Amino acid sequence: MEIIKPRTLSGFMELLPGKQIRFEKMMEILRTTYASYGFAPLDTPVIEDAQILLAKGGGETEKQIYRFTKGDSDLALRFDLTVPLAKYVALHYNELAFPFRRFQISKVYRGERAQRGRFREFYQADIDIIGDGKLDILNEAEIPAIIYKVFRGFGLSRFQIRVNNRKILNGFYAMLGLSEKSGDIMRTVDKLDKIGAEKVKVILLEDCGLNEEQADEILKFIAITGTNAEVLTALEGYAGKNEMFDQGLAELKAVTANLTAFGVPEANFAVDLTIARGLDYYTGTVYETTLLDHPEIGSVCSGGRYDNLAGYYIDKPLPGVGISIGLTRLFYVLDEQGLLNPALPSAPADALVLPMTENPAAAIAVAETIRSAGLRVQLYGEQKKFKQKMAYANKLEVPFAVLLGEDEIAEGVCSVKNMATGEQVKLSPADAAAYIKNALAQTDCAVILEK
Amino acid sequence: MEIIKPRTLSGFMELLPGKQIRFEKMMEILRTTYASYGFAPLDTPVIEDAQILLAKGGGETEKQIYRFTKGDSDLALRFDLTVPLAKYVALHYNELAFPFRRFQISKVYRGERAQRGRFREFYQADIDIIGDGKLDILNEAEIPAIIYKVFRGFGLSRFQIRVNNRKILNGFYAMLGLSEKSGDIMRTVDKLDKIGAEKVKVILLEDCGLNEEQADEILKFIAITGTNAEVLTALEGYAGKNEMFDQGLAELKAVTANLTAFGVPEANFAVDLTIARGLDYYTGTVYETTLLDHPEIGSVCSGGRYDNLAGYYIDKPLPGVGISIGLTRLFYVLDEQGLLNPALPSAPADALVLPMTENPAAAIAVAETIRSAGLRVQLYGEQKKFKQKMAYANKLEVPFAVLLGEDEIAEGVCSVKNMATGEQVKLSPADAAAYIKNALAQTDCAVILEK
Repeated sequence: MEIIKPRTLSGFMELLPGKQIRFEKMMEILRTTYASYGFAPLDTPVIEDAQILLAKGGGETEKQIYRFTKGDSDLALRFDLTVPLAKYVALHYNELAFPFRRFQISKVYRGERAQRGRFREFYQADIDIIGDGKLDILNEAEIPAIIYKVFRGFGLSRFQIRVNNRKILNGFYAMLGLSEKSGDIMRTVDKLDKIGAEKVKVILLEDCGLNEEQADEILKFIAITGTNAEVLTALEGYAGKNEMFDQGLAELKAVTANLTAFGVPEANFAVDLTIARGLDYYTGTVYETTLLDHPEIGSVCSGGRYDNLAGYYIDKPLPGVGISIGLTRLFYVLDEQGLLNPALPSAPADALVLPMTENPAAAIAVAETIRSAGLRVQLYGEQKKFKQKMAYANKLEVPFAVLLGEDEIAEGVCSVKNMATGEQVKLSPADAAAYIKNALAQTDCAVILEK
Repeated sequence: MEIIKPRTLSGFMELLPGKQIRFEKMMEILRTTYASYGFAPLDTPVIEDAQILLAKGGGETEKQIYRFTKGDSDLALRFDLTVPLAKYVALHYNELAFPFRRFQISKVYRGERAQRGRFREFYQADIDIIGDGKLDILNEAEIPAIIYKVFRGFGLSRFQIRVNNRKILNGFYAMLGLSEKSGDIMRTVDKLDKIGAEKVKVILLEDCGLNEEQADEILKFIAITGTNAEVLTALEGYAGKNEMFDQGLAELKAVTANLTAFGVPEANFAVDLTIARGLDYYTGTVYETTLLDHPEIGSVCSGGRYDNLAGYYIDKPLPGVGISIGLTRLFYVLDEQGLLNPALPSAPADALVLPMTENPAAAIAVAETIRSAGLRVQLYGEQKKFKQKMAYANKLEVPFAVLLGEDEIAEGVCSVKNMATGEQVKLSPADAAAYIKNALAQTDCAVILEK
């Protein structure tokens, strides 16, 4: 047979089992946490009609899209989960109850130029709450509160959810008579972290055409920092001059107060006036999330409030608020930084049952007993030498081996070997299950190692 | 804005939230059960190099495949999970521990002609055990034992896993001097259920060119039925004439004995000499699974033992055994037949918390308390009339509403309303959580309703 050299396409993450188990653990935390807040899972097709997927049209996205024909059909692979959500809500509008809360953890596709840490196929983990006509501000606090729970579940504590409100920014620029330049200004201000205040000012003056006074006002505004209470107090100084600003400030105050009610510590969320989010799509609260010890990574979870989810597909105002985690990239970065917890079991089984006799019936029974206690148990049926069996257990990194020879069978016990310490004890199968379960409960189970 | 009519491509399943929640429950049962037997999750790309995916080439598959170019790359969407597994094992051969046990629950793509109940995008839920050179027969009993656990987890009891061994068939045909015609004969015998013994005989005589005696021997052989012990005893009558037959019989006896040791009741598995599986790929034990009350559906879970997983990609013999559930089709059929359990909660939340005051802080705290008991809790923040709030709770089909007005807040309690009975009680938030949890524990939780 002629052999074709196997390969996986570049830009497509394919993990070895140990890492895949950790990745799955992160997905499980996401599913469980999202569901615990009453979000329904959603699963839309990877392939959609290209005309529908590209209804918004244009831009960078269209160049990156995987688009192809099959028969007479013009097809494309989804490039995010928001457009499919818009299509779904418009299509099933009459069957859904609003507010409609959904989560989706699925792969999306972008044919970007391949480079380290950039993926062409990657998971997004999205939550959105969609209202029919209206949507209460309370939802804008709940979304980052859920993200807080997720990141804590991952084992992280040194992260910060940064919150701002586009109405504050738009209102402020309106005060300065700069409404029409607000897009250019926000894109410039967005570079503050990278290039510093002085260079931002130069761009505002030279490229955006602002006068000295306007530029100084903007720099003064975005320099407002401090505790959340301090920032909100400073913002009060601008109140009463512009209706949109005032509305934005009221919303930001409500979100801040409710985030505290949801139990999110102030260390993990900050009002940050430099956050704008590039998309015109967002109209109110906006979010970015950074890892405090790794600012170079940028935002690992972003989103915000929008007023019109599905205007391309339905003639109804459908406001919403949502957030998205780029899970594949997050996993890649955490792994690169050594932040995946080595204490998290990456073995496919908690125990490997090794029959030492020809008839496997006793070993099958022992495996079933341990399994029925909720443990993951692999039965090893291969006819190999003892040393090879142990080598296999070590290669899998299973924490426990359960040995079953003639002696154990005669005594009605099994020998449980702790693979890390070498310690070995004889126990009844039921006691063995309890023993292993107890030992595993001692290990730290968070996915990510906090430095 | 010009509106494009939203639609989902035909042949692509897209469920409403209530059904999606049940589908997710089935996936969770699969993941948990597969993992409990020490299988590692695997996630391979949807897109692969077309040359690699089609290494085997030819046939019906190639016509159905989604194939396209992006830049210079000739790409294709996976049409099953076995070819990506073969590629993965060959590519990572040096990094894997053998036997390598993996499960994968993922979407695959086949551009079939659209028809009712046929899907172009569908989930397969596969498990395989791959050996390096050798693989013990014990694995061939464990695979159907796991499938038994999965189907029981779904809530089914009236199903049967049918087991046969290709070596028995090949050995038997060799005894009759019909080795070269064995493919044609198996395909003919496979029609037994549909067309009956008489017509099978006609085809064997006229199309396959068998003589009267050979055809009668075959009909006599496939007419062997009864309990598993009876069938095995009848097969003993053919022993000692052909080495391959004898080996197949020894394997079938081992699989049958071990299935019993794994706790699979005889009602749920049957030695069935008419099972052959169409693919030449299988070399030993083969499986099919049927729903006893719905034989018209055909096999809902099939697989078997093979000797050469990855011969197209690597010069190593990699024998294995695996099985695949066509999950999307199974779900579709069960739903069509009214077999999805209406008692299974299909609501996105166990409780809907309804604040009746302006300040949501107390409601947030109650929601967090109930949530921390492990329940799925949605907080309803919209400013609506009480009647509209109740209508929303009813539309979502949440089992419990938790009301929080001025009175409740003053008393430090909340009012828990059972939406099905209308019964309402005042409880502390912690007691409310226990009350709801207890009530939900009473309901039958299987996905499928057994008739």
